Amino acid sequence: MTDAALVHSAPERDALFAALRFDAAGLVPAIAQAAESGEVLMLAWMNRAAIEETLITGRVCYFSRSRNQLWRKGETSGQVQHLIELRLDCDGDAVLLLVRQEGVACHTGRRSCFYRAMRDGVFQEIAAPLIAPETLYGA
Amino acid sequence: MTDAALVHSAPERDALFAALRFDAAGLVPAIAQAAESGEVLMLAWMNRAAIEETLITGRVCYFSRSRNQLWRKGETSGQVQHLIELRLDCDGDAVLLLVRQEGVACHTGRRSCFYRAMRDGVFQEIAAPLIAPETLYGA
Repeated sequence: MTDAALVHSAPERDALFAALRFDAAGLVPAIAQAAESGEVLMLAWMNRAAIEETLITGRVCYFSRSRNQLWRKGETSGQVQHLIELRLDCDGDAVLLLVRQEGVACHTGRRSCFYRAMRDGVFQEIAAPLIAPETLYGA
Repeated sequence: MTDAALVHSAPERDALFAALRFDAAGLVPAIAQAAESGEVLMLAWMNRAAIEETLITGRVCYFSRSRNQLWRKGETSGQVQHLIELRLDCDGDAVLLLVRQEGVACHTGRRSCFYRAMRDGVFQEIAAPLIAPETLYGA
């Protein structure tokens, strides 16, 4: 499975952007799904610049609402997401990113951010960290 | 695989709600994923009442932002989603619903709403309707 970098022309990106409907803040929710396992890894937000950078570089870039700036996933932690395919939903207001995740997606060191569940009638953790957060972000 | 209806006690639902962080409009984005295939079906929004109803009935209920009311998925179309498991992400601001989808999730008659993709450098449709929309919603 090759990465999707650098294969999208500007006119095709324009066709995508014409179909995209950003919210009032200029953002759209983006789901990252592991292309090989189908596991849903995380949900984050993208603006137009983040989508453009992701399509051009093949590395997933989000927009951090808390830091109010582009967030190149894995820039600090090394846990990069390589774009395999970007999909858009019927209304154009949600994005699905099929990715190849290096290491773990969650800042807690877990593979997926969705590690808490209502299971067997109990709200519980269903996955343990694979990497210590201190390893990801320094002491 | 049994449905998750009616097994969650009120204290466990309270534990979930204590961990949930709704946005300023009282909503949280919810991803629906087919429990058996792993396919991401759609992204919609839930408020507290929608989550509570979903957990109690075992049928997925969203909140429609356009209609400003609870949206019992499949009520009109018959394309019901049965809840298998509800998961919460690390920040508590996104929900993942593992569901058993009856029929199709998308109002266009496609299995998944994410049927448009940047693939092979072209922005294109990658899935065809399985059911005519007129069949779902009447003529």
